Amino acid sequence: MNKFIRVDMTTLEVKTEEVPEKYIGLGGRGLTSNFVADEVKPTCHPLGKNNKLIFAPGLLSGTSAPNSGRISVGAKSPLTGTIKESNSGGSFSQKMARMGIKALVIEGIPKDDKFYVIIVTMDGVTIEEAPEEILGGVGNYKAIEVLSEKYGQKVGIAIAGPAGEYRLPTANISFKDPEGNIRSAGRGGLGAVMGSKKVKALVIDDTGAGAVPIADVEKFRSAAKVFAKALMDHPVSGEGLAAYGTDVLVNIINEAGGFPSYNFTTGRIDHNDNISGETLNATITERNGEGKVAHGCHPGCVIKCSQWYPDKKGKYITSGFEYETIWGLGGDSGIKDLDDIAYIDRAMDDVGVDSIEIAVAVAVAMEGGLLPWGDGKAVLDVVEQIAVPTPMGRIIGGGTSIVGKLCGLFRVPVVKDQGIPAYDPRPIKGIGLTYATGTMGADHTFGYCISGNILSIGGSIDPLKKEGQIEYSRAMQIGTAAVDTTGMCLFVYFGIADSPEGYQALIDMINAQYGLSLTAEDVDKLGENILKVEREFNKAAGFTNAHDRLPEFFEYEPLPPHNVVWDFTPEEIDEVYNF
Amino acid sequence: MNKFIRVDMTTLEVKTEEVPEKYIGLGGRGLTSNFVADEVKPTCHPLGKNNKLIFAPGLLSGTSAPNSGRISVGAKSPLTGTIKESNSGGSFSQKMARMGIKALVIEGIPKDDKFYVIIVTMDGVTIEEAPEEILGGVGNYKAIEVLSEKYGQKVGIAIAGPAGEYRLPTANISFKDPEGNIRSAGRGGLGAVMGSKKVKALVIDDTGAGAVPIADVEKFRSAAKVFAKALMDHPVSGEGLAAYGTDVLVNIINEAGGFPSYNFTTGRIDHNDNISGETLNATITERNGEGKVAHGCHPGCVIKCSQWYPDKKGKYITSGFEYETIWGLGGDSGIKDLDDIAYIDRAMDDVGVDSIEIAVAVAVAMEGGLLPWGDGKAVLDVVEQIAVPTPMGRIIGGGTSIVGKLCGLFRVPVVKDQGIPAYDPRPIKGIGLTYATGTMGADHTFGYCISGNILSIGGSIDPLKKEGQIEYSRAMQIGTAAVDTTGMCLFVYFGIADSPEGYQALIDMINAQYGLSLTAEDVDKLGENILKVEREFNKAAGFTNAHDRLPEFFEYEPLPPHNVVWDFTPEEIDEVYNF
Repeated sequence: MNKFIRVDMTTLEVKTEEVPEKYIGLGGRGLTSNFVADEVKPTCHPLGKNNKLIFAPGLLSGTSAPNSGRISVGAKSPLTGTIKESNSGGSFSQKMARMGIKALVIEGIPKDDKFYVIIVTMDGVTIEEAPEEILGGVGNYKAIEVLSEKYGQKVGIAIAGPAGEYRLPTANISFKDPEGNIRSAGRGGLGAVMGSKKVKALVIDDTGAGAVPIADVEKFRSAAKVFAKALMDHPVSGEGLAAYGTDVLVNIINEAGGFPSYNFTTGRIDHNDNISGETLNATITERNGEGKVAHGCHPGCVIKCSQWYPDKKGKYITSGFEYETIWGLGGDSGIKDLDDIAYIDRAMDDVGVDSIEIAVAVAVAMEGGLLPWGDGKAVLDVVEQIAVPTPMGRIIGGGTSIVGKLCGLFRVPVVKDQGIPAYDPRPIKGIGLTYATGTMGADHTFGYCISGNILSIGGSIDPLKKEGQIEYSRAMQIGTAAVDTTGMCLFVYFGIADSPEGYQALIDMINAQYGLSLTAEDVDKLGENILKVEREFNKAAGFTNAHDRLPEFFEYEPLPPHNVVWDFTPEEIDEVYNF
Repeated sequence: MNKFIRVDMTTLEVKTEEVPEKYIGLGGRGLTSNFVADEVKPTCHPLGKNNKLIFAPGLLSGTSAPNSGRISVGAKSPLTGTIKESNSGGSFSQKMARMGIKALVIEGIPKDDKFYVIIVTMDGVTIEEAPEEILGGVGNYKAIEVLSEKYGQKVGIAIAGPAGEYRLPTANISFKDPEGNIRSAGRGGLGAVMGSKKVKALVIDDTGAGAVPIADVEKFRSAAKVFAKALMDHPVSGEGLAAYGTDVLVNIINEAGGFPSYNFTTGRIDHNDNISGETLNATITERNGEGKVAHGCHPGCVIKCSQWYPDKKGKYITSGFEYETIWGLGGDSGIKDLDDIAYIDRAMDDVGVDSIEIAVAVAVAMEGGLLPWGDGKAVLDVVEQIAVPTPMGRIIGGGTSIVGKLCGLFRVPVVKDQGIPAYDPRPIKGIGLTYATGTMGADHTFGYCISGNILSIGGSIDPLKKEGQIEYSRAMQIGTAAVDTTGMCLFVYFGIADSPEGYQALIDMINAQYGLSLTAEDVDKLGENILKVEREFNKAAGFTNAHDRLPEFFEYEPLPPHNVVWDFTPEEIDEVYNF
């Protein structure tokens, strides 16, 4: 990967550069975060001409390393105002890597009001006006079909849906997956940045691209084999996720009393059977929909956590139907019908919004009286209104913090204006530290302390106690920053956390590909440096320790059934970033 | 004033305390800001139980000092997240002062969902359920009538309108004025804090109260006379404001090219004659409405800037019809009919929202395509929808920053989420420094540099040049903090800026009342200390120098007709608070 492509949307010019020296050892989030910190003015308006949007494959993307096909997208976030990296499946990352493109950067804002499509091939980059038939609220499913017909079924596509066109703070960037369906770089509103630059879609065609060069092919192959075995040997990554998807967590987290429901007023619900992974699996099996139960979000995935959920006639409704979305609609918003939730999930993918942010916002809207509790049809209707957008569509599309303000509520579960996902920080304290201190607002994937707090993977820490959590959240955040740099799916962690050989194999693959000799310590350093760079950006953008706090109500509203509150002191929280 | 009354809305209990020692020499903003800094947790949610709402008359309120009847209200702001003081006319301040009440503090949040009215008399404080007929979107004009009928025509009233009931970020607190009309503590959303505490209204009945004690009556009387003469001798406070109201500024600021119009895209309009103070005066005179042209917002006012604007049949539409509102609707939103603007102003008073914030938000909504440019009828309709509230009413009621986010715009004129008012910072650079650095978000009254930049009052500084502006904005901010502590209307500045005797008379009145011997230097120190206390609160709440910045587009969009940009560097801006 030796090319750095810059597209200037103000002049509609494209420049190809050598990769700057300092970025050579970086990929994925390591690259996007360093790039944003280097080139984006921290106090700039996220939707203004001074923000930049960067797409970067991971260090291992495009190789035969299992699960290495995640694409990272970075910018200053319109939702949080912080630095932001969001990653996704799809085939985009591997195509970029095979074409030798280390990063694709979109800068500036066009002078006119037209939307464009950027087409990347081995012959170069062209910018065309976007076809009318994919604009003005046309859904992603249809738009991807149109673009695939126009540019070839095998192209990779990144697209800003209707929400991105309208530059709403919850807009995601959607990626076409190997089966033509939708994967998303969901959190932080990066679709709005893409929309602000008037880029409706990126199309990538790797026809003619060769294989990614590997310095030591033999070493790479054998390490990849060890790595794949580690993933397959672990019950979660080798079996559980394929059978039940991430939705396997409904019963686990509900049982733990950390399933925040009805806008974070209780940690356990009675209707968990309606929406659990077991029910999901049984329903899919019974309906025998198109394809099998389990799919990967990108080529080369061996975990295959993605569930294709069909309707009663077996016709595909949605995939990438994740625990957090099902929690947000099923638990936090009290929708008891899994079909309703599936249709809403599809609608969110179609309109191009972060399904976690919208689900958390919906629950707040329910507390605020804007929507009736548990009414799946009403929620579907509102999500579809984002495509218009109606005033109500805009409100929900504004995300949790704005919905909270427009409803005049103080029970608004956000950190740095990003909605808190599916694990309550009161009875699962480790994840609360990640929410509070993460550089991108509340995000479970930023340092997934559920592993050690609930799943007993990579150790075991009492979720109800404060002991050990500060060090644990810190370590998980550092490790995650490193993993996010490789292009690896985060779920590889389950495979390598308890397998020293698996972890070493991951490092060996990087070393074999690049002819390096990194140690585990180097990888830790890499993770630490990424967090420091991100935090410095935020500091310059105006963030302080005062923003590393959970909403106040967690401190005085005990959560049933454990009836515990959030009791970390500010000083303790600030210890997480003491490294 | 020796009483400090605390109303705990959680327990519905009232406590009367001695005034804490440290607050004895403080009043108005000096008291509210010190109190909020002392007792409110900076990181608390503004609508949560840990925020406190404080009402305080100024040091001179209740005396015969001209123009001393402003009431200060303080809390942490739901709009900006900063400390906030907003002051208003009406008779509330003077009644409180005569009753010996130094401050009235509202704490906590009721456990039930009822709204309450707090009644303050010489016999004590009672809390009653609010009558149904003033709840659920009933306008302030009607509600004040109902409360006046119930509690007596002479009572003072502070009320949270429909917007306050719904806790929208633009909700103001309205005060009944001497003529039964509406004055407002407009900026910063303090009505939402009142609504969050479920206080629909405060009623104050000073029957039986004596005069405010004066240590040296003779000295006070003679100082008051000198002070009144200074106000009357100055052409602005003695004549101009009474004749044309603050709207006299339309032609002045338009001529100066600093009248930001069509969402801050030009500094001069052609239809200034439609909305100017001269036209306002001529229209009122011609229509010969109820009462005279000029009125005071509180008893004892000698300036009388307030215009009663009647309809074509001479019937009262609105009063307190200010330049900034007329600018926001007439210039920034391009509404060319003064009657339309008057009806919208009335509707904003009736629903209880900050007329500046809403007008600026309307212009942003017009740029975002939510409303047609210049359509007064459409704007009136939307403002009335706040009383329902419809989704569109909520959006506009969310204020400028939220409207900007829901329209996906970067041309959003706010500082610390508060809309920038009627003077463009590019060609009037002094006021830009006040907007950027003020502790309460963009606010012209926080340090009114228009005086020296445009009006040649208290000196003369070229508005297009940077020279001298840093020191000037600093001095104006310090002086204003002191004036806001006295209960004086800010317009007294016009009278005393060029009159050393007038200024000395103001200090003499305070000294005579309290038996003190303050010097001009002491008054400066008082102002400085208030700013420091406010800034410390903000710092603890998470604000840094990075928040002391104007929106980026001011730096690269030149404003016609002068075609100048905002060119203060961050380092220069940060110099304002170097004292």
